[in-house]
Amino acid sequence: MRFDETYSGNVFIKSHPNYEESKVVLYGMPMDWTVSYRPGSRFGPARIREVSIGLEEYSPYLDRELDDVKYFDAGDIPLPFGNAQKSLDLIEDFVKKVLADGKIPVGMGGEHLVSWPVMKAVYEKYNDLAIIHFDAHTDLRTEYEGEPLSHSTPIRKIAEHIGPKNVYSFGIRSGMKEEFDWARENGMHISKFEVLEPLKEVLPSLAGRNVYVTIDIDVLDPAHAPGTGTVDAGGITSKELLASIHAIAGSGVNVVGFDLVEVAPVYDHSEMTANIASKFIREMILGWVK
Amino acid sequence: MRFDETYSGNVFIKSHPNYEESKVVLYGMPMDWTVSYRPGSRFGPARIREVSIGLEEYSPYLDRELDDVKYFDAGDIPLPFGNAQKSLDLIEDFVKKVLADGKIPVGMGGEHLVSWPVMKAVYEKYNDLAIIHFDAHTDLRTEYEGEPLSHSTPIRKIAEHIGPKNVYSFGIRSGMKEEFDWARENGMHISKFEVLEPLKEVLPSLAGRNVYVTIDIDVLDPAHAPGTGTVDAGGITSKELLASIHAIAGSGVNVVGFDLVEVAPVYDHSEMTANIASKFIREMILGWVK
Amino acid sequence: MRFDETYSGNVFIKSHPNYEESKVVLYGMPMDWTVSYRPGSRFGPARIREVSIGLEEYSPYLDRELDDVKYFDAGDIPLPFGNAQKSLDLIEDFVKKVLADGKIPVGMGGEHLVSWPVMKAVYEKYNDLAIIHFDAHTDLRTEYEGEPLSHSTPIRKIAEHIGPKNVYSFGIRSGMKEEFDWARENGMHISKFEVLEPLKEVLPSLAGRNVYVTIDIDVLDPAHAPGTGTVDAGGITSKELLASIHAIAGSGVNVVGFDLVEVAPVYDHSEMTANIASKFIREMILGWVK
Amino acid sequence: MRFDETYSGNVFIKSHPNYEESKVVLYGMPMDWTVSYRPGSRFGPARIREVSIGLEEYSPYLDRELDDVKYFDAGDIPLPFGNAQKSLDLIEDFVKKVLADGKIPVGMGGEHLVSWPVMKAVYEKYNDLAIIHFDAHTDLRTEYEGEPLSHSTPIRKIAEHIGPKNVYSFGIRSGMKEEFDWARENGMHISKFEVLEPLKEVLPSLAGRNVYVTIDIDVLDPAHAPGTGTVDAGGITSKELLASIHAIAGSGVNVVGFDLVEVAPVYDHSEMTANIASKFIREMILGWVK
Amino acid sequence: MRFDETYSGNVFIKSHPNYEESKVVLYGMPMDWTVSYRPGSRFGPARIREVSIGLEEYSPYLDRELDDVKYFDAGDIPLPFGNAQKSLDLIEDFVKKVLADGKIPVGMGGEHLVSWPVMKAVYEKYNDLAIIHFDAHTDLRTEYEGEPLSHSTPIRKIAEHIGPKNVYSFGIRSGMKEEFDWARENGMHISKFEVLEPLKEVLPSLAGRNVYVTIDIDVLDPAHAPGTGTVDAGGITSKELLASIHAIAGSGVNVVGFDLVEVAPVYDHSEMTANIASKFIREMILGWVK
Amino acid sequence: MRFDETYSGNVFIKSHPNYEESKVVLYGMPMDWTVSYRPGSRFGPARIREVSIGLEEYSPYLDRELDDVKYFDAGDIPLPFGNAQKSLDLIEDFVKKVLADGKIPVGMGGEHLVSWPVMKAVYEKYNDLAIIHFDAHTDLRTEYEGEPLSHSTPIRKIAEHIGPKNVYSFGIRSGMKEEFDWARENGMHISKFEVLEPLKEVLPSLAGRNVYVTIDIDVLDPAHAPGTGTVDAGGITSKELLASIHAIAGSGVNVVGFDLVEVAPVYDHSEMTANIASKFIREMILGWVK
Repeated sequence: MRFDETYSGNVFIKSHPNYEESKVVLYGMPMDWTVSYRPGSRFGPARIREVSIGLEEYSPYLDRELDDVKYFDAGDIPLPFGNAQKSLDLIEDFVKKVLADGKIPVGMGGEHLVSWPVMKAVYEKYNDLAIIHFDAHTDLRTEYEGEPLSHSTPIRKIAEHIGPKNVYSFGIRSGMKEEFDWARENGMHISKFEVLEPLKEVLPSLAGRNVYVTIDIDVLDPAHAPGTGTVDAGGITSKELLASIHAIAGSGVNVVGFDLVEVAPVYDHSEMTANIASKFIREMILGWVK
Repeated sequence: MRFDETYSGNVFIKSHPNYEESKVVLYGMPMDWTVSYRPGSRFGPARIREVSIGLEEYSPYLDRELDDVKYFDAGDIPLPFGNAQKSLDLIEDFVKKVLADGKIPVGMGGEHLVSWPVMKAVYEKYNDLAIIHFDAHTDLRTEYEGEPLSHSTPIRKIAEHIGPKNVYSFGIRSGMKEEFDWARENGMHISKFEVLEPLKEVLPSLAGRNVYVTIDIDVLDPAHAPGTGTVDAGGITSKELLASIHAIAGSGVNVVGFDLVEVAPVYDHSEMTANIASKFIREMILGWVK
Repeated sequence: MRFDETYSGNVFIKSHPNYEESKVVLYGMPMDWTVSYRPGSRFGPARIREVSIGLEEYSPYLDRELDDVKYFDAGDIPLPFGNAQKSLDLIEDFVKKVLADGKIPVGMGGEHLVSWPVMKAVYEKYNDLAIIHFDAHTDLRTEYEGEPLSHSTPIRKIAEHIGPKNVYSFGIRSGMKEEFDWARENGMHISKFEVLEPLKEVLPSLAGRNVYVTIDIDVLDPAHAPGTGTVDAGGITSKELLASIHAIAGSGVNVVGFDLVEVAPVYDHSEMTANIASKFIREMILGWVK
Repeated sequence: MRFDETYSGNVFIKSHPNYEESKVVLYGMPMDWTVSYRPGSRFGPARIREVSIGLEEYSPYLDRELDDVKYFDAGDIPLPFGNAQKSLDLIEDFVKKVLADGKIPVGMGGEHLVSWPVMKAVYEKYNDLAIIHFDAHTDLRTEYEGEPLSHSTPIRKIAEHIGPKNVYSFGIRSGMKEEFDWARENGMHISKFEVLEPLKEVLPSLAGRNVYVTIDIDVLDPAHAPGTGTVDAGGITSKELLASIHAIAGSGVNVVGFDLVEVAPVYDHSEMTANIASKFIREMILGWVK
Repeated sequence: MRFDETYSGNVFIKSHPNYEESKVVLYGMPMDWTVSYRPGSRFGPARIREVSIGLEEYSPYLDRELDDVKYFDAGDIPLPFGNAQKSLDLIEDFVKKVLADGKIPVGMGGEHLVSWPVMKAVYEKYNDLAIIHFDAHTDLRTEYEGEPLSHSTPIRKIAEHIGPKNVYSFGIRSGMKEEFDWARENGMHISKFEVLEPLKEVLPSLAGRNVYVTIDIDVLDPAHAPGTGTVDAGGITSKELLASIHAIAGSGVNVVGFDLVEVAPVYDHSEMTANIASKFIREMILGWVK
Repeated sequence: MRFDETYSGNVFIKSHPNYEESKVVLYGMPMDWTVSYRPGSRFGPARIREVSIGLEEYSPYLDRELDDVKYFDAGDIPLPFGNAQKSLDLIEDFVKKVLADGKIPVGMGGEHLVSWPVMKAVYEKYNDLAIIHFDAHTDLRTEYEGEPLSHSTPIRKIAEHIGPKNVYSFGIRSGMKEEFDWARENGMHISKFEVLEPLKEVLPSLAGRNVYVTIDIDVLDPAHAPGTGTVDAGGITSKELLASIHAIAGSGVNVVGFDLVEVAPVYDHSEMTANIASKFIREMILGWVK
């Protein structure tokens, strides 16, 4: 109950009441207006928080508890409906402040385009940055039906911004021929279809480096994540995604920020996708934040 | 089956295969990108067509059959995701052509903003135009969170364009105080909460006049139309909406175009809303096109 | 629990364990194979029984309790999938036995065609029989796409069998022009759109007569009965259907059998339709069986 | 966003950030453990808050805006799963504090039993208290299957506590014969089936008196409120419930507290019930708090 | 839009507008009337087409694009409700014409019985035909509850027609003992439970041969394909089905026709099954049609 | 149909009509009142029985048919809502009688706490008893928020009762640190995350011993069992659970009773979870009862 000012409403389970004392800042980016197929991810962050009350606080994978890391849930960034550019600007401003305050930004989407201003802001602080990207889709378009601000473009934008060689995509099973060609010709890493095995091969080369991780929940098979805009057969299991998170945890890379995007509750009839997303966030916080 | 060119795929039941010979042109406007609350109406036109196969061809209300009116289903106008202005331009161009060819435009939304370019085009042809508007919401905002192209604005736009005194809204039960004030101060007609009785009072004064009718499905109570973006308690029944359609049919007004918008299949779990929408379209075509 | 043989599994609440001692026999007719639009009513009887556990045993409308009438739930008649003729024969045999044993048959569908053999059997016993029929649809076709055994035909069949003047339909709002014409030309009673008022006008003329009542749940508006194959806008409320049941209860007609058909659980997402159907059955048993 | 301490997470739209300055205190009672049929109302308060973002802030019924009343959303009272007695004690303690601080308690359920400790606490402060009760069910049992703490008992408990003559129930259409008998024999007011008309008859006699209003959402017909534990055919419309709220607003009674209970999101597939509940709460706050 | 005759309504993405110029003919067989458990697959083809708009046109598995193969979507074959024999005759006639025109038939079901007339027609043209069959069920019954036209019989029919040694079933995990016995005694190939590994063993022996492939979507585990009539634990993943499709693509067999059946949208709440089915069809067309 | 007393209503497919002649007794325990997160499993047993009609009677895994084992379905034990202690007492009494009559108890939940009185009763008869436990959760709490009768405690209770060394848990991926510590310190077997491989290692040491097996359906991944209260990412497939059942079948242990708990139909939108649960029960009966 909230007689004093410490109450925090619908926040991620066990989040810390004080921003200053926290090492991690969790925030939602409730935007889905450039989505071409099925919108709805704007409600993703709220539902992930809501179902997080079902989470255990202890990870038997990592032998750590949520109390071991102080994270502050800043709520959803209020974004103007239908205005993509302004939304991206607001996200970028928010993340810059979080980084300036020496904290680790952890975002929840929303469509994947929201990761673009975040990664740009992170790169401004860490100029040796590498991106680890889990997704069913390349997201390497330059535009979608004439529109450069599209959910199909964020990885292309960051790849051009920080250099394609610094971007590592895993689990990709959908995209245009031109996107795959561009990646190959420009030295960007793409592992088609698989995640865990190629990730384990790549991680040693990234040890010690500052890394941002962006996860589109549709890297999972539709069986595991029906609650997303674009489902695509042939994905990985939630078990493999957990193992991949744990592989990064033990790899020696320095994770300086991360996000999980594209959870769409309206397609998530048993709240399965929101539930497993909340567990992934727990494991990432416990595994990646020392 | 489609061995020849007469096949018409997922079209509204009994639609005529030939554009030139048809008096009515049915079309979808699959846009929902300025929606502030729950998107999804972009899939409305396709679902309405799909369930229309369950319709009887005969109206026992009007003693007419679908064969009595030739209507051509032009499919959905392809609209660029997230680009509201360009979408509106494409809709306007399409409707202008339909009108230039001497046909009656019948639109299916999509969010309500799509009615704005349609009404503008119709007004260009019929400069004595009056608008009959059924809706739960005033839709009289000048902008929404700074955005002038919003689903909350179409009636304001057309009211300013053709003069507020020519706009008649019925069933309104939601809006900002400023919107109701503006309507009252500018001589626009708003019937709060009720539809059929005030409509019957107004119709005699419109007899003989060219009228465009725009129906937001959320004028119905949520019990009758759960499959829409913004449900709002206290609406009318589908029986009252049918009676209102029939009242217009017998009133002597000259309906020169109409639309039905805001059906959102993802919230329409038993396809109830799409089914009743298809019946309303049948009754409007049979009742309003002589 | 069932250590002895008195256990009755998924039966309608408070049904009596013994066939011989019961005055009423309740049974399911799980058939939907001639349905043209959306099948699924084969699971209707089982779901109505399941949710009947939520019913109160007392009717405040009639001031009677379920213990006041002994009714036996015979379960579903096992019907051969896809074989309409054989299914109808099995239903007819079953009902003939129930009637021969001096009991009142109360059927749950299943599609509406199942009422045809029941009414035929009842007529064989009561040759002054009148039919009261609540439905959205005329069901007066002679065939559907060449098939004489169709869910669109049962009322035509019984009307021709017992004479159209003995059939009274209420609430009809859908059908072919030919069907309405046939009814009018042959002296059959059809009340379009309305139920309670025209029923009250007709009932005095039926006082003292043997009557079978058949209710298609789609006489209700889709808002009240989404869980059915063919939803059709403009129907009555569940309140009006209750009032109509009570009107018959107080009219002096002698109800010799009745059914409730077309509940389809797969479209009934909150089990609303099955729940209200179970209440209608309670009211009919308590109101019509003296 | 929440950089400072004023953020309030998932709270009812426009709720005031400060408890001391508020006149009304809104709180959730997420308990459903004595429910006999379909549980799930424990998640009701959270969903009502979540969908309240779709509400307009202005009431065209009352010509008032949410800014006109300061209400504080205290969140959900944390209740121990499965322990009914302790949960009721916690609720009573909370409400006593709210009342002691001179504020109006506005509760969201949860099952109906939660209203019992609230009404007891309110009666302690206002000993001329009358109860207005909207419900499909009598809730007048002394126990349910031997259990005195049951969702079927709260009105019996408060009626015995403050005297049956001070309790006015409306819309009742379900209960045991014994419950109706007890009410009649003890001078309690029960209006069967109807709400608005009998309420208008009763209200003049209550003018000037302190009144607590408790609304079980299942007083509405299942068509209007599918998202509840026990749906029961023959209820009122949301339009009639709005009119009833407005009738109380204009009656001169002094509403000293109220609640709305039994919203169960898991049966509320299009979030219809939560959406309309949030509108009822807006209208009650604007209409009843001067 | 469809001002000219090239418009094709709800057709599979990128289908060619002209029948004569196409190498492949896609068609729907919307029949489910012999289904014993849960009907609904009649709406499968329409939904698969509808969601196909979410497909990428490029296959990163095969490095081919949909433009590389000309396929014509002929729509659904109109079938008479409830008349199994006539429906099968219409399907057979249609496929014979497609084959006579030198095109490859690609069917979408509907229940599995629809594959029987297709395979018969294909065998008439290719008398060395082998069948590759992916399914959870043997489908080797001679009849079901006395009915020889049943969804449990198509593989038995074709096996007896072309010789059991020419039929290869994979993934089978359900059936009567008699069915497994009959297969073994008659030299038919059945791989229980597994698909990919036994398929790889069989394919070399089929190289160069004309093969028809029939896929019942329930060969997938219920986790991957909830939207089907009969779900059965222990199935394969969509990843394994994709790999099996690709194994056939690289095997040297000559695929002369194929189908995908038993998608039932009403059980497919997030449209997952329809979405992955559309991807399988893309991969089969790109992989099997040279 | 039920003219005689042999009819058994909604019972598990092929269950035997006579208690005395049966070797196995199947029963439901419809309790969910101590559930902390999402209730609903009280309806699990009824739905499992209902969908069991879709099961084949033959197991191709075990080459046995349901006719080979006589099992009696006793229906659901009637349990008092909200009263956990009394419910557990009733369950214990029932199971004691089943055991005293020399039969094998097979329970369907309901929440996991129902297994506690069953296991206690079984231990009373077989004092060398070992427990095999499949679950996502440790269930080793001593209490939950102060309540010792909680769904989080049954394994702790039985472990303390029969000695922790006699309890073998598999697939555990969620719990408090204290629970894992307690298990390790007290010699209880816990296999984290995996089931089949560690089970195969343990089984030889249990050969010849009396064993009770308790399966919480949430040991499966959410993709396989969405219809349960607490879904948790990273579980096993239904294929692995089948293989585990078969491993026990071939291990030489003597299974003296078993249960399957936590199926919650309200979250099981395509009835997938109930369907696969019915198959697991078939395989356990055919595999474990000689």
